[in-house]
Order: sequence, then structure tokens, then C-alpha cells
Amino acid sequence: MGVILSELTEVLLSAKKEKGLSFDQLGTLLGQNEVWVAALFYQQASASFEQADKLLEALGLPPEIKSELVAYPVKGLGPVVPTDPFIYRFYEIMQVYGFPMKDIVQEKFGDGIMSAIDFTLDIEKVEDPKGDRVKVTMNGKFLPYKKW
Amino acid sequence: MGVILSELTEVLLSAKKEKGLSFDQLGTLLGQNEVWVAALFYQQASASFEQADKLLEALGLPPEIKSELVAYPVKGLGPVVPTDPFIYRFYEIMQVYGFPMKDIVQEKFGDGIMSAIDFTLDIEKVEDPKGDRVKVTMNGKFLPYKKW
Amino acid sequence: MGVILSELTEVLLSAKKEKGLSFDQLGTLLGQNEVWVAALFYQQASASFEQADKLLEALGLPPEIKSELVAYPVKGLGPVVPTDPFIYRFYEIMQVYGFPMKDIVQEKFGDGIMSAIDFTLDIEKVEDPKGDRVKVTMNGKFLPYKKW
Amino acid sequence: MGVILSELTEVLLSAKKEKGLSFDQLGTLLGQNEVWVAALFYQQASASFEQADKLLEALGLPPEIKSELVAYPVKGLGPVVPTDPFIYRFYEIMQVYGFPMKDIVQEKFGDGIMSAIDFTLDIEKVEDPKGDRVKVTMNGKFLPYKKW
Amino acid sequence: MGVILSELTEVLLSAKKEKGLSFDQLGTLLGQNEVWVAALFYQQASASFEQADKLLEALGLPPEIKSELVAYPVKGLGPVVPTDPFIYRFYEIMQVYGFPMKDIVQEKFGDGIMSAIDFTLDIEKVEDPKGDRVKVTMNGKFLPYKKW
Amino acid sequence: MGVILSELTEVLLSAKKEKGLSFDQLGTLLGQNEVWVAALFYQQASASFEQADKLLEALGLPPEIKSELVAYPVKGLGPVVPTDPFIYRFYEIMQVYGFPMKDIVQEKFGDGIMSAIDFTLDIEKVEDPKGDRVKVTMNGKFLPYKKW
Amino acid sequence: MGVILSELTEVLLSAKKEKGLSFDQLGTLLGQNEVWVAALFYQQASASFEQADKLLEALGLPPEIKSELVAYPVKGLGPVVPTDPFIYRFYEIMQVYGFPMKDIVQEKFGDGIMSAIDFTLDIEKVEDPKGDRVKVTMNGKFLPYKKW
Amino acid sequence: MGVILSELTEVLLSAKKEKGLSFDQLGTLLGQNEVWVAALFYQQASASFEQADKLLEALGLPPEIKSELVAYPVKGLGPVVPTDPFIYRFYEIMQVYGFPMKDIVQEKFGDGIMSAIDFTLDIEKVEDPKGDRVKVTMNGKFLPYKKW
Amino acid sequence: MGVILSELTEVLLSAKKEKGLSFDQLGTLLGQNEVWVAALFYQQASASFEQADKLLEALGLPPEIKSELVAYPVKGLGPVVPTDPFIYRFYEIMQVYGFPMKDIVQEKFGDGIMSAIDFTLDIEKVEDPKGDRVKVTMNGKFLPYKKW
Amino acid sequence: MGVILSELTEVLLSAKKEKGLSFDQLGTLLGQNEVWVAALFYQQASASFEQADKLLEALGLPPEIKSELVAYPVKGLGPVVPTDPFIYRFYEIMQVYGFPMKDIVQEKFGDGIMSAIDFTLDIEKVEDPKGDRVKVTMNGKFLPYKKW
Repeated sequence: MGVILSELTEVLLSAKKEKGLSFDQLGTLLGQNEVWVAALFYQQASASFEQADKLLEALGLPPEIKSELVAYPVKGLGPVVPTDPFIYRFYEIMQVYGFPMKDIVQEKFGDGIMSAIDFTLDIEKVEDPKGDRVKVTMNGKFLPYKKW
Repeated sequence: MGVILSELTEVLLSAKKEKGLSFDQLGTLLGQNEVWVAALFYQQASASFEQADKLLEALGLPPEIKSELVAYPVKGLGPVVPTDPFIYRFYEIMQVYGFPMKDIVQEKFGDGIMSAIDFTLDIEKVEDPKGDRVKVTMNGKFLPYKKW
Repeated sequence: MGVILSELTEVLLSAKKEKGLSFDQLGTLLGQNEVWVAALFYQQASASFEQADKLLEALGLPPEIKSELVAYPVKGLGPVVPTDPFIYRFYEIMQVYGFPMKDIVQEKFGDGIMSAIDFTLDIEKVEDPKGDRVKVTMNGKFLPYKKW
Repeated sequence: MGVILSELTEVLLSAKKEKGLSFDQLGTLLGQNEVWVAALFYQQASASFEQADKLLEALGLPPEIKSELVAYPVKGLGPVVPTDPFIYRFYEIMQVYGFPMKDIVQEKFGDGIMSAIDFTLDIEKVEDPKGDRVKVTMNGKFLPYKKW
Repeated sequence: MGVILSELTEVLLSAKKEKGLSFDQLGTLLGQNEVWVAALFYQQASASFEQADKLLEALGLPPEIKSELVAYPVKGLGPVVPTDPFIYRFYEIMQVYGFPMKDIVQEKFGDGIMSAIDFTLDIEKVEDPKGDRVKVTMNGKFLPYKKW
Repeated sequence: MGVILSELTEVLLSAKKEKGLSFDQLGTLLGQNEVWVAALFYQQASASFEQADKLLEALGLPPEIKSELVAYPVKGLGPVVPTDPFIYRFYEIMQVYGFPMKDIVQEKFGDGIMSAIDFTLDIEKVEDPKGDRVKVTMNGKFLPYKKW
Repeated sequence: MGVILSELTEVLLSAKKEKGLSFDQLGTLLGQNEVWVAALFYQQASASFEQADKLLEALGLPPEIKSELVAYPVKGLGPVVPTDPFIYRFYEIMQVYGFPMKDIVQEKFGDGIMSAIDFTLDIEKVEDPKGDRVKVTMNGKFLPYKKW
Repeated sequence: MGVILSELTEVLLSAKKEKGLSFDQLGTLLGQNEVWVAALFYQQASASFEQADKLLEALGLPPEIKSELVAYPVKGLGPVVPTDPFIYRFYEIMQVYGFPMKDIVQEKFGDGIMSAIDFTLDIEKVEDPKGDRVKVTMNGKFLPYKKW
Repeated sequence: MGVILSELTEVLLSAKKEKGLSFDQLGTLLGQNEVWVAALFYQQASASFEQADKLLEALGLPPEIKSELVAYPVKGLGPVVPTDPFIYRFYEIMQVYGFPMKDIVQEKFGDGIMSAIDFTLDIEKVEDPKGDRVKVTMNGKFLPYKKW
Repeated sequence: MGVILSELTEVLLSAKKEKGLSFDQLGTLLGQNEVWVAALFYQQASASFEQADKLLEALGLPPEIKSELVAYPVKGLGPVVPTDPFIYRFYEIMQVYGFPMKDIVQEKFGDGIMSAIDFTLDIEKVEDPKGDRVKVTMNGKFLPYKKW
């Protein structure tokens, strides 16, 4: 299916399901946003020692896993073009709105990029009688090209 | 450089530069968000007849272009993996945060996707003494998988 | 052979063969179209709890599998260009008739797409003395591009 | 934008727009389905001599174009994975429902494929208060694998 | 090496080697051409129940394998461009002679294709003092494009 | 459309159409098989000086073209995976029957390949009440792997 | 040859050659490093208005070009894997030393990346009797992953 | 995650973590730069017999591993385009600064390349109140193109 | 690392290392060139029965392996573009010198190719005070294009 | 046809044909091997000023071309996998014999590569009653991996 999840991810997701915990609840526990917690589950982020302890305790998992949770992972999870429709839509947004976004940002800030490292991402459910909406807020530091 | 802009895009961008107009000003003129206007410039969106007239007048461009502005364009602008660093960061966000976002949205909404069609995208400059930040807000209708 | 089926898919297909059940019969049992049931087998759709119970009972499979049947799967099964001739023909239809379909739909509806999420797919056998025919009916909600 | 239309396609589409004709009207004129006419415009099908004459007359185009309309074209129009959202959805349908469809067809017919050559494709607008729907009907001859 | 053979293929090839049987002998046994038998070994074709019985008996293999031999396989065995020199030559023939063949067939038959489903393939050894020759005969039904 | 024909090919094909000549007639004129003549048109083969003269005379084309007809061309015409359905079927044959053919040839000849250079290709129309058939005969020298 | 340089790049390189100026001299003129000047020539960086004036004057080029020099370019110049041996070696360094560098940097700094935007690059010729050496110094801000 | 580390790499990294040793300390032990040691861990370099002995002793690993440490490995670790953001930045540097670097080096040295074999790579942490910086120094022999 | 060696290759290489034998010594034993022996190890060539016996005896390996050594292997070992620097240089030679070689050979021989099947390959170490050199001699039969 | 030759290459090849000169004769004139001269024609090598003068005089070409002949070209001419059969055979040699060559060279020299820069390539016609043979001799400096 285009991506093979690590054993750690499988173990974490399965323990979370068994405990009936949401990412939002785990976020509160760890003092982080729920998206960041999900990123931790998929080994796209790294926990502090205290966070790893708390998480393992909450999920009822053994301490051996801790070293993997605090490690600095190799990141990026998908095939070159994602086949999953949910993830593909973000590829499509990049294809369709990438150039327009570039022009808008450069008009506002000058030549540079939005950082994807000094970066946060929030997801909100916006209720709407015509159909609920997903609101994704990305917030990244503007990095101007250095001239040297 | 990975993408060949259409002649129309070149003409629009060049007239805009000459007139010294921002996408924000054009957005006000057309009654649309500036990102949508930029998408129109890159032939990723289509104008109404009135919008096309207003835009061509503001840019001092001849009416022959109108039919292209109101047409329904073939969309998608880049190479498979973008080489431009600004646009690549959105590819990276999809690679790193695609699966975490999928889990969060499905936890909140059930099985489905965020529409990239019934969709809006705003860009805001957030001033910050440690370095200004780019805030991108995506808002798409949640589409649940139909069972039949 | 270009695609590795999950263990779950193998187990479901093999139990179905052993029980001598058709997808059509399973569709009647679950109150769904046979294509949707096949999609469930290939982990491209998710069952309700009741459907999972009924299916496992009909196939004589243990309840442990249930959690996988009700999960929201990562979707998309093939290589980039499918090598299986049956599936390739749908790739070919997209290559040959994609643009013509786009023009017809946009002429009838305006700028937008046919949803592949709010979507149903039926397959019918049309008997014909010159050779039976496969009739595939796709029915997806038209989503107009939002202007903002 | 991933695909470069031939000059012939540009000329035909532009004449059609000028004359204010729909594909449906042209289909009636030529005695063919509107999708087939659109396929002819994109050089994915070939006209008879009489059809070419009628079409050129209706579009007010010179007879030199005739030989291209009756030629047997090289077919297939897109990049490997389409970037246009409308066309991509058909790629997605193949990715998500390709295997399920294969199983259903083989259960009903035996080992073989649906022909994409002895094949018709219709598009219908289904009005619906919750949002109009696109109905695509594909009808292809079943071709059983020959054993020799 | 670009392709991973299924366990079934390995078992069949290894039993055939042990029994010292040629594909030609197996073809006589099953009443089919030797190429078709080899296709069956590589899970590119499906046997009848009687053929599966005969084959397993001849190869001294257990009856459990039967269900796999009569199944309708997912087809296509190689990487996108084959690296094995024998198989690559057929890719090369398509690259070099594909367009010329298309023109010859369309000149003789009109617009359409040679079916690869209603299709047979024979291989003959032609002895020649300057070096023996491989003669491959492909015979496929011509399928004219349907106009609708 | 995946392949851009050279100007020479366009000129030759267009002159042939105007003169109403078939590849078969040109083959008789040049003393070669019609497939080879089509390969010459697509710059996949090279003519002798006498053949070039005869061909240009028959097509009513100027002698300047001669040097291109006798040159040794860069060969290979398509995209990596062909999108044209006629040509794709040969790709499919390689995908589905490549391994079976390899086994049959090696069983008959030992380790080696069928040459695609010391090679001929004929196409025949086989009339059949159930639908005419295309018969393609490939004949290539067997080249055994040299051990050194 | 894998990359098509823009007309602007051609004009700049050709004027520089004619004037007999080195990138080093142009760097002194513009108050920038020679690598940055070369990046400007290849439209990978953008000049200030004063720099554009100075550069055009030094190269004897007309002022019309100025607007392109101060624009914010679409960046990235090569094919996916570069074929030019000079540039390929940097691809090779990434392939061979990418993971080791990642581990060293994360051991020294924690989880994060070296910025390629807040970044400088110097090239020095180191004379050596056994063969002169190229010394490339990259200096990028460390960006730690933000936790949110 | 785009790359599968060898078992040897896993064993070495895990023993290093357990022993609490840094690459810098191991470099001192082996008399090599820390980057080279990391390259050895990832099987991108080969140790002498003495170095292998010392390393295994320091890491408390059994001598059986020695033969793998002194072998000459197959090199290159990533997918074609890396998805890990740290490693991708080096791909980006090649895309953006590859051509500029080529021009600068050829202006200084003539036609040739920087060797990636007769090559060293150092990484330094440069403390900076505005954010620490990563300094990467590459030093490769210039290899002029031989004329023959 | 881009290529997964077969278990047979691993066993052969490991036994050779243990016995302290060079490919040159094994070549003498088998009466073949050392490169051919290495090709046999990597399953790119096939041994005679006597050679297989001798090789297994020399390496102290069990006779079960014999059938794999005399089989006709599926050939081709690498990823599409090799990442190992040693092997990549041969890819680079093809990229840089492919067209020049083609012109030279066709000037000397006419239209055709150098066979890679009726082909030998020798490697020699040429001692040189300025650095030893690798001499690779390829010798393949010229195959002229057949005209038919 | 997979590669677009530069205008310069076309001009040089065409002048050479008109003058009836062989690469061998031009090599004698320039004091270089004929393969190197062909590489110069394809802009894969650069001439000295004197060589450029001599070559242009011999070919009867105007002096404006000189600056292109002495420039340091961007190298690499083909598509990722070549479709021309002559050039493909070198790709095949790399696929089939790449690993065996690597082992032989490393057994003789240690860990390192054959340079493709400090490198010569000769082509010889070896007459043989069973069919003439192409002999290609590559001679590259061995570059041992530096340890640092």
C-alpha cells in the first residue's frame, strides 16, 4: 500500500486503540499538540525523556521502547506520489497552489521560504450545516535567502 | 527550471509588475482572496466574465485574453517532485505530516478526506521579533467515504 | 507482481473461496454493493461493527480480525502504472478519454471534478450474443471549484 | 502543465467556442456520442470522411484539416500520473477500486478483461438536490484469456 | 534481480527440473502449447481443474497447490524496464518497431489494435548453419475501435 | 502525445499519403519487407543509396533528404511505458509472457537471447469469420552467452 | 543535455566571456561572494536594484534585463539525477555521506537540519604538489525541529 | 522510510548508544575523523584490521562482525530523491548551486571535477548568538579531464 | 543499498573469503577468465556441470547448490541508476561517451551494435608511478542491422 | 528520440559529412584519439584554441563557433535508460557485469573506483572470419578511497 509502517508505529497505534485514548488526550498528557503526538507515533518527531516515560505509562507499554521514542528519526513516509486519497490531496494542493502561494509570500516577505522545521501544524473541526470542514493551519518561520 | 509557464501567465505577471499592483489589491478589485487571484494568474482557476473584464482593464491588457481567463484550465504546475525550495517545503510537509494528519482527521471525522476543491487557502504575515512567520490556513470540506 | 496484498486480504479471500460465497452474496448479507464488499476485502473501505461481525461469522473467521475491518485504511493498491492487463485498461481509459471526459463534464457542470469519495461504482454483466459485455457505472458528486 | 495539446486540438476547440456549439450538438450532427466527439477533438479517435466534412463545415474550418481528422492517431494524452484534479480522480479510482473490480468481473465472467477498444463511454448529469452528480457509464466487451 | 518469483513458481520450476520434464512434454500432457504452460508456471495463466490435477500428478506435487493453479492471477512480472537481456530485447523491439508495426497494421485493418488477450504465442527453433534462429509467432485478434 | 516525430518522418508520411502508396507497394519497389520500410520512415533503419533514390522519386520528394535516409539513426521512439494502446499491447506481452518465453527459449537453445538486430519482423492479416487476426512473426538469431 | 538554461543565463554568461571578467571580479564589484554571483547568473538568486545596475553596466548589457535580475526566481536547475559528472559528484556525496552527516550533526546539535536558505557556500583552490584540491565550505544555520 | 539499514548498521548504532560513546570519541580511538567513522557505521567505508579490532572492543561486540567491517561495501544509501529533510537539503544545494559551483571551479581550475573519492568531509559546530551554525567542509582533489 | 544479493551469491562470496581464494585462482581452476567467474558468483552467468563440481569442491560447499550454478539466471543487478560510485562510473561513461562511441563504431562498421552477449570482458592492473590504472577491455561481435 | 542534439553538434556532424572526413582523420589532425574527437563533436570534451582553429578550418566552418568548442561543456547526453540499441548495450554491460567488475577491481586494488575523468577510451576493429569484432579499451586511473 505504498508505505510500510515501522513495528514501533504499529505497536503504538495498537496500544492507543486498546486504551481508547485519542491523540488529543495524549497531547494534553504530553503538553503538545495532537498533530505533533501523531507525528511522534509515525516516527516523524522525537520525545523528551519525560514525555517518553509518560507516553509509555499511558499506553501500558514496556520501557524498552523508550530509546526509540527519544531518537532522532529518519523522516518522510510515503511513496513519491502518494496513492492514499487523503494524503494525495496535499500533493494536489502543492501542484495547484504551489506557485500562487510562492508569489503571495514573496510579495509579502521578499525572496525566501516558509520553514517546515521551525513550523507548527494545527487541525480543527469546523462544524457547518452544509457539511463540516477541516481547517489546517500551518505556521512556519519565514527564512529569507542569505546573500553572501 | 522544472516548469514552463504559459504565455498567458507571463503576460499577466509582467503587466502586474508594470502597473505596480499587488495580488492583494487585485483581490480587492475582483472581490476575491489574493491567493485565488494568483491561482488565476497561473491558470489554476477561472474568472467570471465580469472579473476578467475588470482584471484586463486594471492591467491594461487587450480583451482578446478574456476567453482564456474564463476558461476551465488544465491544472497542476510542477514536476513530480518540485525543485524550487519554497514549493518543495509543501511536498516535505506532505511526506512528514501526511500520515499524522490523516490519523487526526479520521479520529475527528471518521473515514474520509479534506476536499481540495471545496477549499480555500489564506496566507497571512505574522510579525514576530524573532523572525516573521508565514501562516497558511487551508479550509476544505470534509468528504466522508460513501458506502453503497 | 507489482502489489503485495496484506495478510488480511489473503485471509479474507481464502475464507471466501472455502465457503464458496460470492461477493454478491456477501453484499446482500451486509446490505452493500458487491464492489464495495470487494473494496473492503482489499482494505480500501471500512465496515461498521455490525458488518464486521456478520462478515466474520459468514466466513468462519475469528473475532480478532474485527478491529482491522473497521479501521480506516491507507488506500491505493498498485504500482504507478499497473501491469495487470485488467487494471491497466482503466489506466488506458484515463489516458485516452481523460481530457474528453473533462471537457464534457465542464461543459455540463462548469469548472470542477467528479468526486471519487462521494462516489459509487457498480458492475453489471450484459449478455450479448456477440460476446458478453462489462458495464461499469460510476456515480460521483460533482464538486465545483470554490472561489474565495 | 503536463500535456501539450496538438495545434489541431487547439484549432478545433477554439472554433467550437467561437461558434457556440456544444459537444452534444456536434454529436447529434455527426451521429455519435458527445464523448466520442470530444475524443475526436483531442485526436483520440478518427472520423469518417463524411463526418470530417460535416464537422469542418459546422466549425467553419478549412478542408486542409480533413486528412488529420480521418487519420488514425497516436493515443494517450497525459503525464504518467495526471496532475489535473479532474483526470487524477480516474487514476485514483483505478488505484483504489482496480483490484476490487478485477475480482468482481472475474467472479462473473472468468479470467479476462474489459476491452477498452470495443468500448463505449457515456456521461450523464444526474440532478440531485444535495448536489448534482456525474454518472459515467463504461461498456466494454469482455475478452476471455485464450488458452492455446 | 528486478523480479521476485512467487513461491508457487519456484515450487513448480523445481519439481519440473527434478522430474526432468520439458515444457513441451507438459504441453502435450495438458493439451496446450508449451508457452502457455510456462505462462501457467509463472502465474500468468490459469488451468482448468483437470489440467491442474494432471500437472500436479506429473510433477509429484501435493493437491493443496491446486487452488492456486486454477485461480485468476494478477499478471505482469517485471520491473518497468526489464534488466534481463533476453526480456529487454522485446522491450527494444517495441521501442524500435512499435510505430512501424502500428502503421502497417492500421494500413491493413484500419484504426485498432492487436489483442493481447485473444492471443496466442508460439516459439520455434529454426536450424540454420549460420546460427540457429528463434521464431516467435504472435497471433492476436484485431480489435477495431468502436465508434459510438 | 508521448513521442515527437522528426520532421523527416512527417514529410515522408505525408508524401506517401498524397501519392496514395502503401508500405507494401514501397516494399516491392525497394525490395524489402513493408515493416522495414515503415521502420525507415520512422528513422529506425537506414536505406542504401539506390533505395533512397528510388524512394524519393516514388514519393516526389527532393534529393536533399537523401543524406538523412542513408544515415545511421539514433533508435527508439517512445516514452518509457507507451501510452498508445496499439504499442502498449507489445509492452504488455513482454510483461506477461517475457519470463515464459525466456524459459522456453533457454530450454530449446541454452543460455542466451534472441537477437533484435539480426532480426526480421513480418505482419500478416489472417482472415477469420470470427474477426480477422494480426499475425506477427519475429525471427531473430539465437545468440548464446559466450564463456571466456 | 538534461537542463535548458534560460535566455537570460545565456546572455549573462556570454557577455561575461566577452568582457573577460571572472566571477571573482564581479563578486568584488557587487560586494558578494563569487559563488553567489554565479547563482545570480543561473537565476538561483536575486540582485538588489543597485547590484543589477552595476552588473549590467559592467557587462555592457541593456537595462531591460534589470527586472529579471531583481525578480525572485523559481529555483532548481537539473534533472532528477544529474548527468554532468561535476554536479553528479555532489549527488554522490549526498548518497554516500548523507546518513553519516545526519548522525554527526544530530549528535552535536540535536534533532534538526542545516538550513540551505540561511546558508553560504565558498569555494577555494588549495594548491597541492600531488594535485590541487577543491575546498567547498558550506555554512548553514542549524534549525532545530520545533515542538508544539 | 525510504532506506533500510543493514543489520550491521543497526548493531553498531545500538552498541554505540549503549556504551554512551560519541562518533568524535570513536574517531579519536581509530585515528580518523568522526564523519569517516559514521560512514563506517553506515557501511560506506571500510576499516583496517586494527581499526576493526579496536572498534569492536570499544563497542563490546563479538569478533564475527570484523569481516564485514573490513569489507569493501556497496555504497549509496538513499532513495533517488531523499525524503528526510536533513539529507534533502544537500540534494537542494546540488539543485540550486550545482551549476554555479561548476562554473566557479572551472574558472579556477579548467575543465574537470572535484573528486568524491580522494575526498574528505568535516563538520563543525559554529556557535552564534543568532543561532548556531553547521559548517561542512568538503575537500576533494581536482581531477582535470584527460585528453587522449 | 539499491540491490539485494541472492543467498547463493552471499554463500559463494563468503566461502571464497574463508578459503582465501582469489577470482583469478578460481578462473584458472575453471578454465575461465576471472571476470566471468565473478559473474557466475553474482548469478549473471551459468557454469557447466564439471565447473560447478570443481567450484563447489574448491569452496567446500555442499552439492545441493550445483543446480543453481548451472541454471540460466535472470540477469541485471542494479537499480535503474546505480548509487555505488564504482558502478556509477560505467553509467557515466555511457552517458558521456555513448554517442561518440556509436559514431566511431558506425563509421568503422556501418549501422549496427556491439554484442553484449557474444562478448568478453577483461580487467588488467596497469602499474604506473603516477597511480596505477584499471584497464578494461570489452570485446563484442559487431552485429549489423539485418535488412529484410 | 530520447536526446536532442545541440545545434553545434548538428553543424559539426553535417560539415564533417560534407567534407568526407572521418573521425580518425580529424584525430590525426588534432593530435588526439578519434573517440575524443567524437566526444568534442557531441560537446562532451573541450578543445584547445589551436585545436579549435584547426578543426574549423578543416571543416570549413566560420570562426564564431570557436568559443563553443573551447568552452567546458555540461556533460551527459542520454535519457535515464537509453533506448538506442547501440548505447543500451553499455547500460546492459553495467547492469550485468557491474558487480563482477567491482569485485575484481577491489580484489586487485583495494577499495576504490576507476576514474572516468583521468580516463581514455579506444575503439578498434578486430577482423574475424566469423564476424568482425568491436574492441573497446577503457583505461582509467584507480582512485583509492581516502581515509581521513
